[in-house]
Amino acid sequence: MLSNKAKVFRDPVHDIISYEREGDFGRLMVSLIDTPEFQRLRFVRQLGLASLVFHGAEHSRFAHSMGVAHLARRIFDQLHPDTPHDDPVRVATIAAALLHDIGHGPFSHAMERVFGMSHESYSYALIADPSTRLHQVLSFYDPDLPLRVAGYFESATHHYTKAIVSSQMDADRFDYLSRDSLMTGVEVGRYDLERILLMLGHDEHGLLADVRAYEAIEGYLIARYHMYRLVYFHKAVRAAEVMLQLMFERAKDLMNKGVAVISADSLLGRLMCGERLPAADYCQLSEIDSWAQIRSWSRHPDPILADLAGSLFERRLFRSLEQTIESPDHQREIERLEELVRERLTPEQRYLFVVDVAQDQPYKPYWPGQTLVGGAIRIRDRQGTLFAIEQRSPIVETLARASYRLRRWCFHRQLEPLVHQVLPAGPPKTGTPIH
Amino acid sequence: MLSNKAKVFRDPVHDIISYEREGDFGRLMVSLIDTPEFQRLRFVRQLGLASLVFHGAEHSRFAHSMGVAHLARRIFDQLHPDTPHDDPVRVATIAAALLHDIGHGPFSHAMERVFGMSHESYSYALIADPSTRLHQVLSFYDPDLPLRVAGYFESATHHYTKAIVSSQMDADRFDYLSRDSLMTGVEVGRYDLERILLMLGHDEHGLLADVRAYEAIEGYLIARYHMYRLVYFHKAVRAAEVMLQLMFERAKDLMNKGVAVISADSLLGRLMCGERLPAADYCQLSEIDSWAQIRSWSRHPDPILADLAGSLFERRLFRSLEQTIESPDHQREIERLEELVRERLTPEQRYLFVVDVAQDQPYKPYWPGQTLVGGAIRIRDRQGTLFAIEQRSPIVETLARASYRLRRWCFHRQLEPLVHQVLPAGPPKTGTPIH
Amino acid sequence: MLSNKAKVFRDPVHDIISYEREGDFGRLMVSLIDTPEFQRLRFVRQLGLASLVFHGAEHSRFAHSMGVAHLARRIFDQLHPDTPHDDPVRVATIAAALLHDIGHGPFSHAMERVFGMSHESYSYALIADPSTRLHQVLSFYDPDLPLRVAGYFESATHHYTKAIVSSQMDADRFDYLSRDSLMTGVEVGRYDLERILLMLGHDEHGLLADVRAYEAIEGYLIARYHMYRLVYFHKAVRAAEVMLQLMFERAKDLMNKGVAVISADSLLGRLMCGERLPAADYCQLSEIDSWAQIRSWSRHPDPILADLAGSLFERRLFRSLEQTIESPDHQREIERLEELVRERLTPEQRYLFVVDVAQDQPYKPYWPGQTLVGGAIRIRDRQGTLFAIEQRSPIVETLARASYRLRRWCFHRQLEPLVHQVLPAGPPKTGTPIH
Amino acid sequence: MLSNKAKVFRDPVHDIISYEREGDFGRLMVSLIDTPEFQRLRFVRQLGLASLVFHGAEHSRFAHSMGVAHLARRIFDQLHPDTPHDDPVRVATIAAALLHDIGHGPFSHAMERVFGMSHESYSYALIADPSTRLHQVLSFYDPDLPLRVAGYFESATHHYTKAIVSSQMDADRFDYLSRDSLMTGVEVGRYDLERILLMLGHDEHGLLADVRAYEAIEGYLIARYHMYRLVYFHKAVRAAEVMLQLMFERAKDLMNKGVAVISADSLLGRLMCGERLPAADYCQLSEIDSWAQIRSWSRHPDPILADLAGSLFERRLFRSLEQTIESPDHQREIERLEELVRERLTPEQRYLFVVDVAQDQPYKPYWPGQTLVGGAIRIRDRQGTLFAIEQRSPIVETLARASYRLRRWCFHRQLEPLVHQVLPAGPPKTGTPIH
Repeated sequence: MLSNKAKVFRDPVHDIISYEREGDFGRLMVSLIDTPEFQRLRFVRQLGLASLVFHGAEHSRFAHSMGVAHLARRIFDQLHPDTPHDDPVRVATIAAALLHDIGHGPFSHAMERVFGMSHESYSYALIADPSTRLHQVLSFYDPDLPLRVAGYFESATHHYTKAIVSSQMDADRFDYLSRDSLMTGVEVGRYDLERILLMLGHDEHGLLADVRAYEAIEGYLIARYHMYRLVYFHKAVRAAEVMLQLMFERAKDLMNKGVAVISADSLLGRLMCGERLPAADYCQLSEIDSWAQIRSWSRHPDPILADLAGSLFERRLFRSLEQTIESPDHQREIERLEELVRERLTPEQRYLFVVDVAQDQPYKPYWPGQTLVGGAIRIRDRQGTLFAIEQRSPIVETLARASYRLRRWCFHRQLEPLVHQVLPAGPPKTGTPIH
Repeated sequence: MLSNKAKVFRDPVHDIISYEREGDFGRLMVSLIDTPEFQRLRFVRQLGLASLVFHGAEHSRFAHSMGVAHLARRIFDQLHPDTPHDDPVRVATIAAALLHDIGHGPFSHAMERVFGMSHESYSYALIADPSTRLHQVLSFYDPDLPLRVAGYFESATHHYTKAIVSSQMDADRFDYLSRDSLMTGVEVGRYDLERILLMLGHDEHGLLADVRAYEAIEGYLIARYHMYRLVYFHKAVRAAEVMLQLMFERAKDLMNKGVAVISADSLLGRLMCGERLPAADYCQLSEIDSWAQIRSWSRHPDPILADLAGSLFERRLFRSLEQTIESPDHQREIERLEELVRERLTPEQRYLFVVDVAQDQPYKPYWPGQTLVGGAIRIRDRQGTLFAIEQRSPIVETLARASYRLRRWCFHRQLEPLVHQVLPAGPPKTGTPIH
Repeated sequence: MLSNKAKVFRDPVHDIISYEREGDFGRLMVSLIDTPEFQRLRFVRQLGLASLVFHGAEHSRFAHSMGVAHLARRIFDQLHPDTPHDDPVRVATIAAALLHDIGHGPFSHAMERVFGMSHESYSYALIADPSTRLHQVLSFYDPDLPLRVAGYFESATHHYTKAIVSSQMDADRFDYLSRDSLMTGVEVGRYDLERILLMLGHDEHGLLADVRAYEAIEGYLIARYHMYRLVYFHKAVRAAEVMLQLMFERAKDLMNKGVAVISADSLLGRLMCGERLPAADYCQLSEIDSWAQIRSWSRHPDPILADLAGSLFERRLFRSLEQTIESPDHQREIERLEELVRERLTPEQRYLFVVDVAQDQPYKPYWPGQTLVGGAIRIRDRQGTLFAIEQRSPIVETLARASYRLRRWCFHRQLEPLVHQVLPAGPPKTGTPIH
Repeated sequence: MLSNKAKVFRDPVHDIISYEREGDFGRLMVSLIDTPEFQRLRFVRQLGLASLVFHGAEHSRFAHSMGVAHLARRIFDQLHPDTPHDDPVRVATIAAALLHDIGHGPFSHAMERVFGMSHESYSYALIADPSTRLHQVLSFYDPDLPLRVAGYFESATHHYTKAIVSSQMDADRFDYLSRDSLMTGVEVGRYDLERILLMLGHDEHGLLADVRAYEAIEGYLIARYHMYRLVYFHKAVRAAEVMLQLMFERAKDLMNKGVAVISADSLLGRLMCGERLPAADYCQLSEIDSWAQIRSWSRHPDPILADLAGSLFERRLFRSLEQTIESPDHQREIERLEELVRERLTPEQRYLFVVDVAQDQPYKPYWPGQTLVGGAIRIRDRQGTLFAIEQRSPIVETLARASYRLRRWCFHRQLEPLVHQVLPAGPPKTGTPIH
């Protein structure tokens, strides 16, 4: 029976996540969860603006982080069934999994691009800065723990357990694919997690999998590929992100011209002025401020800022026109047309037209000399031979080659006539028409 | 094939929800969804503060409302398979289902108690007030539609379709049980929705079900009972709600003493001054303001206000001690002890102790003369006889009798010594101890 | 990583069931599964004739037994996380769980009634008889193991681990409810297994559960209640079982009159002659023989035998008329009518009319002095007090009181006129008719 | 409400399947299900011997056929929402879907190879032969219906509705992938059926899908690919099928030598003598006979026949050694080794060694001039252009090229020394070993 002291969390993906508070490890985990820095993640949605398109995807980085820690624990304990709960490597790995997103701000990648900041560096700061409650909890457990955990977020670290937290087949991806596909309702993101978990092993270079998980891993990589195509790169999701960036750009431009747009000592105001926030301030930052600011800007005297903010707030998204590039010549032609559009824009309209490029390599293959942490997914066959999965899987080999760029014109509805003037015939089509 | 013009939503509960924009009905629904009034529901969590306890339960009233409209459509179309999409009763019923929560503010019931407001009256206003986009969309479709839809929220209306939107077995409950149990991860909230839907019928008094859904309905009522016990009345959820009320009370008391607590022309400020907001303003109100205010108060000079707000924001919840009342004498004794506690509180501490009472009747049985809309769940047996389910089901008959009140002392941790002084022996126990 | 030597089974209910063949315990389990006695269970359907009504319910006792062993292992290991795999009590408990149905013949309870045999005594024989491969595998592992395992099937045994295999909340019921509800498609049979498993504990009297599983256990008992009502006691399922019994009765009567009906040295023939089969022969017995015999009888010269067998084989089931008994007087009246029907039957027709009574007590409550293994379900509350669940749960208290008998007239379609002559008005109705 | 007359089936895959018996169409379907010919399918397992390997996969062709008819109805009604239930094309399509497997014998493909028979020709016979109940039910509904339904099983037919019953994306595959993956527990076989169904359209050449189902179809084709690799071509499943064939070969050889092996007038005996069974007899044939015969042969005086039969019955399967062919030279080398093994076998041992070849092309691409029924999967993009999915999907293009042959040596355990003598080094390995 779970002890009375156990802290039990119910989770839509993993059902039950529990930590025994009778042991040091369990107490540490519950204390980390209780820090204000971790609680802040409740106010940062995992998929940022995607919930404007997938209305179910309103889950936060808090829920996701709970799931990642849970999976990291399951993976570690399956690799080392007899290791005690308080083993330092185990503790560091699972704590790092819990905290891997701790530095994420609101709307994550979109916001980072606007402010030129990186969530990794804030993650490091929130853990390493002695003023944070997080640092205090970690160092109370073990004075070395903050740096050991922070090490999981640095590229210099090569311990194989890093692959549990960050690699092409890690607890992070396992959780976000499962969670995002459940919440968005996009079923193609599902895959056979239990089979993979059961078949994971490791050597000093990272994780590997028994060949009995071969098909499950193919399915997992396809699921990731599909989630990028259908959700993360969904044209309306990208359009919303583009609008967010344009809105902040407009606000900065106005600020530079001396127009009052934001209180200079607010968190967002300081970020807009290029300040790097101290850890204690950063952990106040969440979607609350951002949405409050967006709503406030929706009533700003500047019509462009007001329009962009109001459109985001009430979900009137930009149009999106995908440009399928078929050849270098075609690309040059498209770029010429883009130039043409830009030339015809009034100065204000340049906040209403963007060429958005989303790109991904669905799988990064093996190359000799790579450090395997974060490298290819390795399989062990029945004879004990290790191979990189793409070496035998035509599916994964295809994914490795299938890097793609989605080039889209995102623009305000009022530009529709202008765009269609420039681009009268609709985008060219691929493929031989068949009956 | 779904037409190119169809608007497709993916949903974690119902998978695919779609509206054909080629038809008037579909266009109306999409237009209603696109109104700022409906979009606002994205910023109001369905379960309010419960996500502090069930971290997965971060879904909004937007998602829930989408589900209710979808289920109302399924129910209506199953009752009337040959009715055209644009039938006025069909349109009004489904629109009413979509909009049934339109007047909900943030943290819903907790906030309503604080401000003495009712979401029903705001629902009415948002639909009936000609200044709202919602009203305009409805009346553009049909000048009578706003009033017809608003009628679904009035107790005076008796059309049987009202039971689809609001009764003991309605689209609202069907959706929230399914959605809340999925999101919280509390599996006991699941039940056999498909079986019930297939077996629904109606007469002029409301809905009824074929006896082949008898067990599924028992299961549904048990699921509802369990969700109240485990989620909606969870002691930590109620503790958070109590804290929210105390925080606002403290703020109001300070305001009355002339202490600056809030900008008087902010939405929350106006509500705190007892103003009834016009529809246009009300639909600006969401959790964004509330959380921003809570965070701001967490730095207020008043230590009590700051403590309550900060504790909510960083999730340091009140303790909760359940008092199982065993007899009228026992109740008097408990009330005496509560008085004793209150007497020993300093004036400031009275914001730190509350007796919280949650009560529910898991099922409301039939009584002769009732209007059946909202009344007992009626079953038609193989011989065509109608009966109220509790007349033959010992399970439901038990639920009808099982009204309960959960009486809990909710208090700040700092009051723990005081409480345990007054109540030294722990709560009394029910039941004969067995080996 | 699961070792190369692990035997992995995929299961529709439990996903992955695996046994490491590197350890003695795992090798024993795989060897037990490989015995002809256990393999025989592939040819005995878990629900017997119910698959004639629920076409998905074609799963065998083999699959069910695999699931019960898996759950017994999970329960044991959760009670004793540090016990070695080869601990004798652990091994005996899990082996007993695997073998709990080993003595079941085809169509189980229906057939047992016909031949006056008990599967428990055959279970005992198959394990205890030194000629069986099962016995040899068990005693090769440990000479005491056969008797220790067999002890789990005797009422004299009181070790608390027996409750894992056989009680009101055991691995057997956990598996069959989950499996039967999945396979039949009857969703109401689902319940929150994971929650219950996590909260199980034990003392020397048997299993008990933490109060945090209280609602999950209520749900589990309701699920069992509903599965009996909807599946195990389904009127068409019972009608098929009645037909099977009548067919064998007719065959025996013909045999007694000297008519050739079956080869006297076939397994079924020997059973019909009242022989108790030796273990080695019994384990040849499966549905194969039975269905082959049924099909053969469908062409028998005796028209009654041929009709009963052919009707079973081609699924033309008896009519079933439920008699809801409302009072002792009413019961006497019904019995009088049954007598009346019987009087009017020709001698041949007496094989075409049966009064079938199915009864169950959905939950057996605590009574002082009971041995708790198999007794009430005990809960431990937060204060450490043990109580029987019905002492605090109105739902379970209702189930304990809700013993019921379903009395049905099952008869061949050709008797329909006769039955309706005797019983012209349709069965009486319960409940006050309401509008 | 579903009418009292509706026949409701619960199904583990599709939940509820129902036919209204008030309409002609519904009555026809229920009558078809009730024929002895269709009821026979209860005794033919969908996956034949695969249940020896995947213990959950015990479902019959009856359950599968119910699912196919249900899906065919959903597809048809989604293509033609306003077509009346009794439309002749609709009726023929759905009836054909129900009956598409009606001619399948036990162990299907394995048995067909042994007896040189084809289930398609028996399907035709069972429908076209006026002596069958099936024919009578069909022609009672409409004298043309038997031939119209039978037309769906002929290659000469080109009506687009044939693609619903038989194509690369048909109701048959939709059901068997869903059902087999659920029952085996092999999760990778799941895919997003609902999304595909919603997006299906048609033209006169067959089905097509909107581009919004593009990823779901990729997922479906990957699921099919994985099910072949993991289930249908599982080495132990194939080993069991090989054993079945060898057993029948041995029996035939003995029969030809005059040894008594089977009653010449039994169904299997007549098939072994090369007789084509009349429809009325064929529909007596099921796994009952086959398993009874296998068990009987397990006690046959011929040791080879007895060993093969007993090994199947008690699941002692052949060893299987996969030979990965790397080049034409390598193939010649392997064939030379196979010859070497065969030379060393005693005459009896030739029943104990087989080279088994399983091959599949996971997707058949478009070629100009193809008849599209059964041809490539066609997608309609947003501009209305039709393309074959492999023209734009690198994943499907890879599947189209990924034809594969699995070459395995299957042999009795007693031949292990001999095989390892010939093939000492283990199979060659593909791929560059990596660290």
